[in-house]
Amino acid sequence: MVKARKYVVKKYFDGVPKRDDFEIEEYELPPLKDGEILIKAEWVSVDPYLRAYNRFNKIPYDQFSFQVGKVEESKDPNYPVGTKVVTHKGWCDYCIVNPSLPTAPGQSIYKMPDMQGLPESLAVGAIGMPGVTAYFGFLEICKPKPGETVVVTGAAGAVGSLVGQIAKIKGCKVIGFAGSDDKVQWLEQDLGFDKAFNYKTVNVTEALKQAAPNGVDCYFDNVGGEISSQILGQMNVLGRISVCGSISSYNEDPAQMPKATVVQPAMVFKQLKMEGFLVWRWDGRWPEAFAQLTDWIKSGKMKAREHISEGFENLYDAFVGMLAGKNFGKAVIKI
Amino acid sequence: MVKARKYVVKKYFDGVPKRDDFEIEEYELPPLKDGEILIKAEWVSVDPYLRAYNRFNKIPYDQFSFQVGKVEESKDPNYPVGTKVVTHKGWCDYCIVNPSLPTAPGQSIYKMPDMQGLPESLAVGAIGMPGVTAYFGFLEICKPKPGETVVVTGAAGAVGSLVGQIAKIKGCKVIGFAGSDDKVQWLEQDLGFDKAFNYKTVNVTEALKQAAPNGVDCYFDNVGGEISSQILGQMNVLGRISVCGSISSYNEDPAQMPKATVVQPAMVFKQLKMEGFLVWRWDGRWPEAFAQLTDWIKSGKMKAREHISEGFENLYDAFVGMLAGKNFGKAVIKI
Repeated sequence: MVKARKYVVKKYFDGVPKRDDFEIEEYELPPLKDGEILIKAEWVSVDPYLRAYNRFNKIPYDQFSFQVGKVEESKDPNYPVGTKVVTHKGWCDYCIVNPSLPTAPGQSIYKMPDMQGLPESLAVGAIGMPGVTAYFGFLEICKPKPGETVVVTGAAGAVGSLVGQIAKIKGCKVIGFAGSDDKVQWLEQDLGFDKAFNYKTVNVTEALKQAAPNGVDCYFDNVGGEISSQILGQMNVLGRISVCGSISSYNEDPAQMPKATVVQPAMVFKQLKMEGFLVWRWDGRWPEAFAQLTDWIKSGKMKAREHISEGFENLYDAFVGMLAGKNFGKAVIKI
Repeated sequence: MVKARKYVVKKYFDGVPKRDDFEIEEYELPPLKDGEILIKAEWVSVDPYLRAYNRFNKIPYDQFSFQVGKVEESKDPNYPVGTKVVTHKGWCDYCIVNPSLPTAPGQSIYKMPDMQGLPESLAVGAIGMPGVTAYFGFLEICKPKPGETVVVTGAAGAVGSLVGQIAKIKGCKVIGFAGSDDKVQWLEQDLGFDKAFNYKTVNVTEALKQAAPNGVDCYFDNVGGEISSQILGQMNVLGRISVCGSISSYNEDPAQMPKATVVQPAMVFKQLKMEGFLVWRWDGRWPEAFAQLTDWIKSGKMKAREHISEGFENLYDAFVGMLAGKNFGKAVIKI
């Protein structure tokens, strides 16, 4: 018998998630049935959508997220012992999966891609869901052209830091907004952003008038809210906006969401196109993104910084820290 | 020598345009040069965009808008005396045009389409710019499918009243929001909207939960602001929003635009697509829309109600009345 632990969400979050909104359950896993495999978690991801989806789930629920694990026992010949897998089983140290059962889009188990010597933790980061999010969410929706000016918010986060680098690879001018001077320095000096700003200390409109005097063509929006309204005001005719997230409002009361400057005048007079997406949209195409992202990272064109914590016990702290913007790049926990 | 009159905008509008923001100039038109024609105005249009574009123009400027006129003198053999034309010469009783000179997109003179016995005033309405706006702005951007639910704001206006009828023709369920109970009655009883609401007296979210229990697939947005945020909150996954106007903010200070509930959470989680447009985008395709709209009106499938005022002196009142929502359908002035 294997003793397993998992985080169960017991309450709807009210503002910043609290430690006692979660309960760690210890329980014995049953013996494997035919078709099942036992997975030992090695890397567990924390991401903004874990906060956002709280209200869409029925409590109690097991805290989901992406996870890299290793098959420890197997009754599925396609997944022999030792196979590295990526699942959406989230905050647990052991779990049982039947790989042939259907799942919600994007949440099926898959074998870890060939990491070509890169850290396996990247399979929940730059060569995982956040990487695919940046790759397709930016390229397919913004359709950037060389020479265009691209703005990214949440620029030092798991997705934003990749989007900015993809934009540079595609020949764009890249401006990032992040939440600290250290992040700004990292974006400009290490990641090659043309310009970055601490949104907490600048006037966004004035900053863009200086840094993007010819206007903004593409905006990759991780945060929503007032900063996004300000950026829309600086966009060029026929500009494209990819809305990936809205982290500025995730901790807010859904019944009383914050207000921001109306977007419609900019949408009309600049003829802008704004599209929100969930990465499951490109479900069948993830391997295509994995291959390109691996290539860029191996060749040094892209840096995939991680913000690593250790220990199953520290998942809550890592999650809340990420929501507060403490991470540079991808927040991931070694189990 | 012909004596002509025109409205010149002398001041930037502050809130609702004031009568003395305009000055009526009387002047003598010079003799025609080769290639020029003299046009006598017959029908002049007032539209929301006249308000919105004020701040984008250098004052003083002649008040533009669409106009149906008749050629009274001609030195262009393509436009013989008696030809009916549509120009963007706006609020004047006589003007001189050289049809072969280039203009801004969508503002070139064109011969009035074959109205097939319909009122010629429709050439600045349902068979003019507002008609094309409704036709392409709805069909090309919302891409409605039969059986889908469509919401229209500004539903009793020149464009909105056509959009709702086009949606019905295309087999959609149509819900309109307008600004008075009389308009609601007109939309439901005369135009065939499945449901209409007075946005001033209902809770928009609750109204839609009742009238569109299966959610909203397409939203044609004439108004922007808070009502649009509420409607976005009731949309279905992969819904489409066509942003045609933002009249709720046209009279506001551009430096201090109103705020509305953030749109990004709905954009992301519903994977919505929102696109703003200007009708000049389909410049080469206006005749295609004219032909279809004429056909629908002649066959009784579409009603093209007009709100007619008379007299050059009353252009200002008609304009401000339209901005305040006094019109049912297209506001137009007989000169």
